[in-house]
Amino acid sequence: MSGKTVLITGATSGLGLATALPLAEQGAEVVTVGRDRTRLPIEAPTTEFVVTTSQERTMPIRKAEAEWKGNLVEGAGRLKLGSGAFEGPYSFKSRLEEGQSATNPEELIGAAHAGCFTMALTAQLSQKGITPNRIYTIARVQLDKIGDAFAITRIELQTEAEISSIDDTTFQAIALDAKQNCPVSKALAGTEIHLTARLVNSR
Amino acid sequence: MSGKTVLITGATSGLGLATALPLAEQGAEVVTVGRDRTRLPIEAPTTEFVVTTSQERTMPIRKAEAEWKGNLVEGAGRLKLGSGAFEGPYSFKSRLEEGQSATNPEELIGAAHAGCFTMALTAQLSQKGITPNRIYTIARVQLDKIGDAFAITRIELQTEAEISSIDDTTFQAIALDAKQNCPVSKALAGTEIHLTARLVNSR
Repeated sequence: MSGKTVLITGATSGLGLATALPLAEQGAEVVTVGRDRTRLPIEAPTTEFVVTTSQERTMPIRKAEAEWKGNLVEGAGRLKLGSGAFEGPYSFKSRLEEGQSATNPEELIGAAHAGCFTMALTAQLSQKGITPNRIYTIARVQLDKIGDAFAITRIELQTEAEISSIDDTTFQAIALDAKQNCPVSKALAGTEIHLTARLVNSR
Repeated sequence: MSGKTVLITGATSGLGLATALPLAEQGAEVVTVGRDRTRLPIEAPTTEFVVTTSQERTMPIRKAEAEWKGNLVEGAGRLKLGSGAFEGPYSFKSRLEEGQSATNPEELIGAAHAGCFTMALTAQLSQKGITPNRIYTIARVQLDKIGDAFAITRIELQTEAEISSIDDTTFQAIALDAKQNCPVSKALAGTEIHLTARLVNSR
């Protein structure tokens, strides 16, 4: 990254900081924008911090599509991700019965949640200068019938992390924070979220 | 379905009823289990209702997996749906930059939400004996930076329904109900959800 200049907004903490540090370590000139110079972390000596009125970068809006033809039980649906990474069928049967090869909304919620939690955990580790070898997370999403209505009543996140330079107490605290504060966890405020986190090979 | 016997739990309303009625219409003997005989709808004359203590069917628990190797910015992740319908990469870049072909948690939330809303709308129509020709829904999921934290601040559902036998007032009421009460909407209580619903060809 030597000779390159990178502008990062909101780089005094969180994802912004986790992005700034490795780039700076690789020799990039990192120019960051934040609202509070006092939050500049002392461990970022190679980074030049420009403090201005906040002007956050434009965040992408993500799209997905659903189509349905016919009635509930005999009809058929299709789902498509905006990136084009996946398009495929879903149905009443694939949603409520076991052993189906078609997708369903609950496992998509699970993938979003497992993915978001795992990235948030990685972000927090990276912010501390720790690089995980591997993090593996399963999400289990429970659809229940409460009276006559369906509801997602519980999501279980189960994560295993191979990290060579962290103690379990620090790891558990970071994992809990990632569970509570990753964007998908915060959005899923209407359901219970449980976490089991295991450090596989600490030093 | 003639000659077949189908046992349905919780069939006095909602998805249970929407399942029972078309099966009964096709000649199946539908045996249902509910907790309240007084809720038996009068429009289900061919259905034999067995009233017992509630014993709801076992609902599936859906799984998905995430894996991450390396740090936040240079590392790479993979996501996998329990059904096997999709497995593919995701990364810091595919999450925060435009024009990426890899997936990200936000568009997976969008697919789950668009799919769940569309199925809930179909379920309510089917319950009224109305079969939609086609329902098409786009979900737009907005990831924002609030201070130093990321959050999913808004989901926009935009649906178009081709239904030949419904007036717009009834349709709008059903669509609003589906938006408020589909399981994914209820789970996503931590974000704003907006709906635009359009009836494409009413009678």
